[in-house]
Amino acid sequence: MKIDLNADMGEGFGRWHIADDDALMDIVSSANIACGFHAGDHVIMDRIVRTAKAKGLGIGAHPGLPDLAGFGRRVMPVSDTELEAMVAYQIGALQGVAARHNHRVTHVSYHAALGTIANEDPERALRLARVIYSLDPDLTLFVMPGQASVKAAEKVGLRTQALFLADRAYTAKGTLVPRGQVGAVIHDTAILSTRVRRFLEEKTVLTIDNTLLSMEASSILVHSDTPGAVDLARTIRDQIIALGGEITPAYRLIS
Amino acid sequence: MKIDLNADMGEGFGRWHIADDDALMDIVSSANIACGFHAGDHVIMDRIVRTAKAKGLGIGAHPGLPDLAGFGRRVMPVSDTELEAMVAYQIGALQGVAARHNHRVTHVSYHAALGTIANEDPERALRLARVIYSLDPDLTLFVMPGQASVKAAEKVGLRTQALFLADRAYTAKGTLVPRGQVGAVIHDTAILSTRVRRFLEEKTVLTIDNTLLSMEASSILVHSDTPGAVDLARTIRDQIIALGGEITPAYRLIS
Amino acid sequence: MKIDLNADMGEGFGRWHIADDDALMDIVSSANIACGFHAGDHVIMDRIVRTAKAKGLGIGAHPGLPDLAGFGRRVMPVSDTELEAMVAYQIGALQGVAARHNHRVTHVSYHAALGTIANEDPERALRLARVIYSLDPDLTLFVMPGQASVKAAEKVGLRTQALFLADRAYTAKGTLVPRGQVGAVIHDTAILSTRVRRFLEEKTVLTIDNTLLSMEASSILVHSDTPGAVDLARTIRDQIIALGGEITPAYRLIS
Amino acid sequence: MKIDLNADMGEGFGRWHIADDDALMDIVSSANIACGFHAGDHVIMDRIVRTAKAKGLGIGAHPGLPDLAGFGRRVMPVSDTELEAMVAYQIGALQGVAARHNHRVTHVSYHAALGTIANEDPERALRLARVIYSLDPDLTLFVMPGQASVKAAEKVGLRTQALFLADRAYTAKGTLVPRGQVGAVIHDTAILSTRVRRFLEEKTVLTIDNTLLSMEASSILVHSDTPGAVDLARTIRDQIIALGGEITPAYRLIS
Repeated sequence: MKIDLNADMGEGFGRWHIADDDALMDIVSSANIACGFHAGDHVIMDRIVRTAKAKGLGIGAHPGLPDLAGFGRRVMPVSDTELEAMVAYQIGALQGVAARHNHRVTHVSYHAALGTIANEDPERALRLARVIYSLDPDLTLFVMPGQASVKAAEKVGLRTQALFLADRAYTAKGTLVPRGQVGAVIHDTAILSTRVRRFLEEKTVLTIDNTLLSMEASSILVHSDTPGAVDLARTIRDQIIALGGEITPAYRLIS
Repeated sequence: MKIDLNADMGEGFGRWHIADDDALMDIVSSANIACGFHAGDHVIMDRIVRTAKAKGLGIGAHPGLPDLAGFGRRVMPVSDTELEAMVAYQIGALQGVAARHNHRVTHVSYHAALGTIANEDPERALRLARVIYSLDPDLTLFVMPGQASVKAAEKVGLRTQALFLADRAYTAKGTLVPRGQVGAVIHDTAILSTRVRRFLEEKTVLTIDNTLLSMEASSILVHSDTPGAVDLARTIRDQIIALGGEITPAYRLIS
Repeated sequence: MKIDLNADMGEGFGRWHIADDDALMDIVSSANIACGFHAGDHVIMDRIVRTAKAKGLGIGAHPGLPDLAGFGRRVMPVSDTELEAMVAYQIGALQGVAARHNHRVTHVSYHAALGTIANEDPERALRLARVIYSLDPDLTLFVMPGQASVKAAEKVGLRTQALFLADRAYTAKGTLVPRGQVGAVIHDTAILSTRVRRFLEEKTVLTIDNTLLSMEASSILVHSDTPGAVDLARTIRDQIIALGGEITPAYRLIS
Repeated sequence: MKIDLNADMGEGFGRWHIADDDALMDIVSSANIACGFHAGDHVIMDRIVRTAKAKGLGIGAHPGLPDLAGFGRRVMPVSDTELEAMVAYQIGALQGVAARHNHRVTHVSYHAALGTIANEDPERALRLARVIYSLDPDLTLFVMPGQASVKAAEKVGLRTQALFLADRAYTAKGTLVPRGQVGAVIHDTAILSTRVRRFLEEKTVLTIDNTLLSMEASSILVHSDTPGAVDLARTIRDQIIALGGEITPAYRLIS
């Protein structure tokens, strides 16, 4: 049983950083790298790519809206062309940095409001899937099961990798419980371990309403920007290994 | 006789612009496209690439220092790693935008202070030549004859294309007369035409000291950010054609 | 009859600019100065303030959303606190620059999406009026008659100055015809002159439906970011003078 | 014996921060607030000012070069006018934010490369002193004894407040031992306490060469951007209080 463990990386700027990227890169198998629009800059990206290459991690672009001050979390009006151009620009930028380290970008994972925009409109999901495919048809798009991006990728012939968010509560519909609500984020490591075990053994998750939801995914997203993120990631990693799972970069899971 | 005519393009930001890019793209054969650090943004780059593709222009990355406020003209301290990363990032970003339009980045031309930094130190010139080669060994680096970048490119196996700056006065050493000095910039179209003629017929240029300087180049750089740039470009183009020359994108001049 | 003529100024960034600010400053009596968020930077502001002081122009802050790429035209989600802080910051910044030239900021005029946000919610209009008053109770807020900002200013004790937009069509309700619609912007100088005459003589404007609308204003806003803006401004100025009007900075109109 | 204890504050941007500002504001008596150029933004400034006001802290502007990516530490070429304008802009911006909280900016402290530029040239030191004085003649400039800024302020009539950097080693000349050198920064709290005691009792500091240097200052600068900054600040505070000193905002020390 091979499972990818991935986290957002390089979400700092200049002197600033949020996560302990170095510690996380010893735990996860894939890194979603911020590309300079909502966070990240060329120096940070360069350092993350070099380390990821050295540690055998897969790397993906984590493009966001051009909003450093708002960390890419504010939905703002953008035209179709701007949307397409910003995704092409950011993935390309990371590909450039990766090329100089003889590494390769193998996946794409939308950040925050860019993901919202991409998934609230099937036509826009399709536009972006086409952009990604045009940059490299071997790229894999990280998705949540049921998102508009899944169908869009299928139409275009773009591979997808479904994510399980181990530390976030799900509704019976398979959507995430919004962050504001009680119980939206799971902090208890015992509960977290149970969730990971259930996911690995049954490919299910217990929803916030105590119903069982099918969770067809082979990749777990670990949040990196919360206090205790490193411990959380290690808990998940340990549980996977304890159950005989093998932490494997997403790009090696592709059949 | 095939001659490439190129100009810097897309040196605006958001609502702002400097040159009349659309008019220039009807005149030149190659576009050096600002990549978002000293000027340019993803939307502008996207528009320029689309138009360049439609008009059959070759496109190149025109990377600069990360200094929007200073237009990339201020030399500032940057580490080797930052220098390498910024060039990889910017070229990659343009490659990404080009890919989505099924166009291809075929050359690189340093902007302002980045060029100064790259050429004032052979070791840094070499570092950057390696970065460019690692992104795409078929890229051509635009150079001034005699610059450190020429030798650096040779060592790395990177192709170069020598530029003749038709509207700038040269010293007997082959360097440009600094902008501040009298006569540094040629505005007179009659003189300009004579210089273009001499360059095309003899591959020489008359220096500011009235000596003849050999000018082994097959590409002319047209400044785009000065008033009257479009007329100037047209003067050069007309003269080339009048002499039987053929305006040809740089990437097609490569033997 | 004293009339203030004002225009937005300094809406460039670094090397870029939109309007011919120098030409406009020979025509208008008040300058609404961009403060670095949607456009403008400290160098540009400094130059505009110095010139305005020399020419006897009144100066006002023209604060906008922090969105250089979008020129402050994109409405984006901002908290009340962020809204208040951004207005305080920008006005203060201009006051600082003005102080060093021994000039004084005497009015405030919201830019684009900031104006939209300020006026779509009476409570937010009130919050901003309070902020402005707290910085200097002698500041005058430029408004369109009927906006939420008018009442908000009244409550707070903040002076307002009503604007007539000579080159924009009005609906019978007193709102502007949206830019997308046919006839929204008046380019014809003869029609423009007629409108100015009617405004000066009758304090009315002919709406797009050919009804007469009362226009209680003593200040005319001239757009500076359209081609031909300088000619337009001069047309208005000439018409005012021809009718015996006196172009007077807004701060001198306060009774 | 009254001593001011101050620290740089609000040196984050958007989601990012460096220091634990809230903890520090319970320890120090004056806050040097980043103004948005090298760090800080209007939201952060607003929060710091509100808290400072509530806790009775004095506030000062901590202007820097416009270099968010380089944290204002890179010396870059700026014209006299740009230098003057950037300092006026930043102080004014903070004054604006302070005004809305009915607080008042009472001092100015240059950040990093701006301080270097201001102090390496007496004429520039003078220009900036004049700018500060023109914004508010009651402002106090924080200085290191011996800097060009001290004389400049005297000439202009601007008050100064000398700083003692308790955790930095001094040379016999009274300059700081550069950060790169061994022993430049004092981390040992016992040694730190001894230094604070000597400073309070004798107004001297033991230099790195073990000579005694006179240290005529009544304000101690605590670094906020190093790990353990809060503990360090508390050590200094405790020592001052243990010796009967009274932690007092700088603006109340002015005779």
